[in-house]
Amino acid sequence: MKERVGILGHRGYSGAELVRILQHHPRVEAVLLEHREDASGGPRLRHAEGPPRLPYSPEVIRSEGLAVVFLATPPEVSMELAPALLDAGARVIDLSGAFRLRTAENYTTWYKALHTQPELLAEAVYGLPEFCRARIAGSRLVANPGCYPTAANLAIRPLVEAGVVDRAAGIVCDAKSGVSGAGRKPSLKTSFCEVTENFSAYSVLGHRHIPEVLQVSGLEEREFSFTAQLLPLDRGILETIYFRAPGLGGAMELVELYERRYAGEPFVRLYQPGSLPDLRGVARTNFCDIGAILDARTGRAVVVSAIDNLVKGAAGQAIQNMNLLLGYPETEALL
Amino acid sequence: MKERVGILGHRGYSGAELVRILQHHPRVEAVLLEHREDASGGPRLRHAEGPPRLPYSPEVIRSEGLAVVFLATPPEVSMELAPALLDAGARVIDLSGAFRLRTAENYTTWYKALHTQPELLAEAVYGLPEFCRARIAGSRLVANPGCYPTAANLAIRPLVEAGVVDRAAGIVCDAKSGVSGAGRKPSLKTSFCEVTENFSAYSVLGHRHIPEVLQVSGLEEREFSFTAQLLPLDRGILETIYFRAPGLGGAMELVELYERRYAGEPFVRLYQPGSLPDLRGVARTNFCDIGAILDARTGRAVVVSAIDNLVKGAAGQAIQNMNLLLGYPETEALL
Amino acid sequence: MKERVGILGHRGYSGAELVRILQHHPRVEAVLLEHREDASGGPRLRHAEGPPRLPYSPEVIRSEGLAVVFLATPPEVSMELAPALLDAGARVIDLSGAFRLRTAENYTTWYKALHTQPELLAEAVYGLPEFCRARIAGSRLVANPGCYPTAANLAIRPLVEAGVVDRAAGIVCDAKSGVSGAGRKPSLKTSFCEVTENFSAYSVLGHRHIPEVLQVSGLEEREFSFTAQLLPLDRGILETIYFRAPGLGGAMELVELYERRYAGEPFVRLYQPGSLPDLRGVARTNFCDIGAILDARTGRAVVVSAIDNLVKGAAGQAIQNMNLLLGYPETEALL
Amino acid sequence: MKERVGILGHRGYSGAELVRILQHHPRVEAVLLEHREDASGGPRLRHAEGPPRLPYSPEVIRSEGLAVVFLATPPEVSMELAPALLDAGARVIDLSGAFRLRTAENYTTWYKALHTQPELLAEAVYGLPEFCRARIAGSRLVANPGCYPTAANLAIRPLVEAGVVDRAAGIVCDAKSGVSGAGRKPSLKTSFCEVTENFSAYSVLGHRHIPEVLQVSGLEEREFSFTAQLLPLDRGILETIYFRAPGLGGAMELVELYERRYAGEPFVRLYQPGSLPDLRGVARTNFCDIGAILDARTGRAVVVSAIDNLVKGAAGQAIQNMNLLLGYPETEALL
Repeated sequence: MKERVGILGHRGYSGAELVRILQHHPRVEAVLLEHREDASGGPRLRHAEGPPRLPYSPEVIRSEGLAVVFLATPPEVSMELAPALLDAGARVIDLSGAFRLRTAENYTTWYKALHTQPELLAEAVYGLPEFCRARIAGSRLVANPGCYPTAANLAIRPLVEAGVVDRAAGIVCDAKSGVSGAGRKPSLKTSFCEVTENFSAYSVLGHRHIPEVLQVSGLEEREFSFTAQLLPLDRGILETIYFRAPGLGGAMELVELYERRYAGEPFVRLYQPGSLPDLRGVARTNFCDIGAILDARTGRAVVVSAIDNLVKGAAGQAIQNMNLLLGYPETEALL
Repeated sequence: MKERVGILGHRGYSGAELVRILQHHPRVEAVLLEHREDASGGPRLRHAEGPPRLPYSPEVIRSEGLAVVFLATPPEVSMELAPALLDAGARVIDLSGAFRLRTAENYTTWYKALHTQPELLAEAVYGLPEFCRARIAGSRLVANPGCYPTAANLAIRPLVEAGVVDRAAGIVCDAKSGVSGAGRKPSLKTSFCEVTENFSAYSVLGHRHIPEVLQVSGLEEREFSFTAQLLPLDRGILETIYFRAPGLGGAMELVELYERRYAGEPFVRLYQPGSLPDLRGVARTNFCDIGAILDARTGRAVVVSAIDNLVKGAAGQAIQNMNLLLGYPETEALL
Repeated sequence: MKERVGILGHRGYSGAELVRILQHHPRVEAVLLEHREDASGGPRLRHAEGPPRLPYSPEVIRSEGLAVVFLATPPEVSMELAPALLDAGARVIDLSGAFRLRTAENYTTWYKALHTQPELLAEAVYGLPEFCRARIAGSRLVANPGCYPTAANLAIRPLVEAGVVDRAAGIVCDAKSGVSGAGRKPSLKTSFCEVTENFSAYSVLGHRHIPEVLQVSGLEEREFSFTAQLLPLDRGILETIYFRAPGLGGAMELVELYERRYAGEPFVRLYQPGSLPDLRGVARTNFCDIGAILDARTGRAVVVSAIDNLVKGAAGQAIQNMNLLLGYPETEALL
Repeated sequence: MKERVGILGHRGYSGAELVRILQHHPRVEAVLLEHREDASGGPRLRHAEGPPRLPYSPEVIRSEGLAVVFLATPPEVSMELAPALLDAGARVIDLSGAFRLRTAENYTTWYKALHTQPELLAEAVYGLPEFCRARIAGSRLVANPGCYPTAANLAIRPLVEAGVVDRAAGIVCDAKSGVSGAGRKPSLKTSFCEVTENFSAYSVLGHRHIPEVLQVSGLEEREFSFTAQLLPLDRGILETIYFRAPGLGGAMELVELYERRYAGEPFVRLYQPGSLPDLRGVARTNFCDIGAILDARTGRAVVVSAIDNLVKGAAGQAIQNMNLLLGYPETEALL
């Protein structure tokens, strides 16, 4: 019999992606938990099947025996719901930023809001399996990483661990994201006519994802420059990362460094030295593709890291975490 | 009576843009010079008017009294045609890279081809009016700048002149361009299905436009890191430029630095400190929009420079140069 | 001295297009009338010039001596403001649907709302110059046509007048529009992620533009089938129009029929028989391009009509009407 | 042990889609057959796995024991290769138009070329499972349907069978396709800058897919008007189909008609009466979505049929046919 798992926030882009991927998961069955009134009108298809829907309540979690509940909700909603879900015996995978930072103060600094469940921060495990796998399996509350930090940390942390980066010179991360990263709520900034044939930076100087990179990558605050920019496309994040690596002889050394670090990792793929990934290669996959060049002219290395922001940057990674929580093969439904 | 000017290569995107803009020029009339066989079939409109067409030959230039000829042709064709055009008495504005670099050796290094008219390199004037205005007016041969270098040099040279950049730390220029920058010749790389919903770097490590930036900006080779990337849109270049500016107190100082340098310049527009330009603001205009922020967290400045690659990055700037050559108001047909 | 004209609703797409085109009009100066609070934040450019701004009031119209006021506002706002504007001595060009239909009943049927100024309907002149030129010049209140009806009526009315259509078989008009036709107000339906890589019909069975086509084209209700569909692009309307024309020998006869009807018309362009227009050819122009084929296999004719929905379908046509009102050359600022 | 199947033409869009879908097929393993020289350069990923590759020859088919070979090749190549493949004991599913029409004369009329294997036309079975399922299972050579005809025939044939269409008035099919339908070979018509922000008709009056609709739908030549148009998007075909259905009382009757015809069909989905499908709903699926309205105003019915041109319109349907040939559940790898 299949294990049942719940999804709150299934109408957003990350929530819908959870539904889409879980459809092909052989061991779990998704249940949609309706938390807010559904204003989207009735079904347009005659015989729409899809996952069963239940009104959300802690009792439902318990009576339905939901092993895991995904929160694809804004951070304030995740903070509100997480305690009761845990009390009801579910393990929680939160896709918002509510439980990613280690302290309530840091949350307030970057999210400009109070953290209403500071006591859960100590318990929450950051759900980047490539670096936190051991702790994830035994946890009750997984803070699923942000999309930008997933691509950034997978590219940067091995460099920092290996000590190849000139830390004084720092790292520049020029990041570009598709529009689905901004969520499904209508706004002028994500309107078709404003985005198409356009490109621009946003959240300049204070993007909420910066502290996640600092927390995981091992970089100090002044070592990490980050710019988020909006691409006129639906899905994908590509980050172009610049740094000085004075001890390196060539791109091959960089690629081999990654290769050693990620040996056996199912979701990190490396490009040949001198080749860089594109977004098409990762679309609708849970892969993070990484490529590197070393520019002899300038002495700078360039690493490019690409993911699908809704898969490895959200729903796919959440399911990877669910697989770890429930003891399934980590790649189930994701390859 | 209107002055007549010729266009070679009017079927490419830059050439077509020359035609489009010159239609509204009150003092000149464009003549299309047919150099190669026209394989594009007859006109589809019943009463297409458009500029008159003439078969190209040096005699035609002379007999028609064309004061200026635009070469919207590949560099090898520009090198082939320029001498005869100059002999025929025309002044030449070349939109290719043929005459932009100062030495034939440098050309060979970056274009991987011999320069067949090295003696013309000494005479050619680099057509970036904001920095070379005085020399342009009296020249016979204008090398119209590349699209990436136009955006880069307008942003970087004032910083270098003012001495605010930490040269040892260098400058990172993360550049993004629309597809029209690659020209009209069909190729898999610019096919719709390969570009839409995609983003990727190209010409990694050896983009031909790098030496133009070195030549004009005042930077040394190892100080300038450059990555060209392809946006899924038609027109526009946006460059995100990172550097350390240890002596600066804030973005306002940067913006004021630009404001002093570009006082009176009709085609450079500045954004408020902390605001950055987007591509939509420059589309189909001859403006270069520049904005700056200073990240107190990291001590790095970020300058964004945006142009329309077919206008200020090609045809518009070429007409700006033509206005200078012919003694017209510099902004004629361009505002 | 330039004549001054006012624009209400300059932040919407049609209003912004009015501003853009009027910038190049040699005889008029635009004034932006601020009717609602401006919530869009301060200017991002340092020295934004643009047209002067005034708070809207009928007194301002009078004291500023505005000859014409453009209403680029929703129909309910246009109905509210038009009487006072007319009283203040301005001539009004309304870009909404408020004054296009001849009766208040018809308005209520299609707009699902009461008409609050029924007495103005008799006075309003439908602003399609190719068919109503004589009446426009002398009018006080011009109802600028809808975007779909402009393309449809220019294609269909000459056919009906010439009697070539098999009326019993009727006309099918399969219409496709870019997203800017839906206006600038954010909504899920016009969000980037919902529109890109998508295509769909909307306002099925009751599109508000249908009665305008019936009123102008000469077709009876049951003779005209219309489907509006949303293209994943910014601007442009293309309508594919199917009908039986039993008496016609070939596409040439159709094209010649249009040619006779539109002889001397500056903004209707015809394609060669067998060639059909595309959206690119009309983008950012005030042209309506028309092409025709006759399918010997099926006995059906196909006519394609293409415009830029923001220009000939809105702001450009409104300025064409203003030129008529003020006695200027009809093409001023529009070629 | 998995059955092995071969793919010729795996670099084209349909071929790549075959590879993508077969990756998830539990019973077959794909083998890529290299027929032409590979000019695409080496792999960019370090450890690209993907299906095994073999040089194509009839002997390889035999020695490898390939049960089925997919031809994702142009029709002239399919005609050239099919006989040897059949001789080698493989069953062939051809995705080109080579074997879809019943007579060599008809092929010549529409494809403007001689048919080099006319004797195979009698044997070939048209691979539209919803109408030809019984014959497909036992065949050696399946002519996989064209993309436009798949959407058209699934919508139209039930109407013709049920006798609800006013045949004298005929059917208008206004069809729109994404760019991948034109294949991967670079051409100006499918270049990004020509397609983006554009929309246009193509293959006017003689689209090769018309005879497939005539052959399958039951319509006579003069009853079927068809226009193919290019959407600025990657994948998807949507057809808007107009006809008179004098005996019908409402859209519900139409939807019920389809419901009866397609009861039990796994890949045809119906929309509620009055709702019409969009492209997003079928992207990357093997579904054909159908919706219907009946316009009481005009007495015309409108049916919209939507598929993914690379899935139900090509590779997905080919795998559906393979499942039938090999006796697997028809939906294997396709839901």
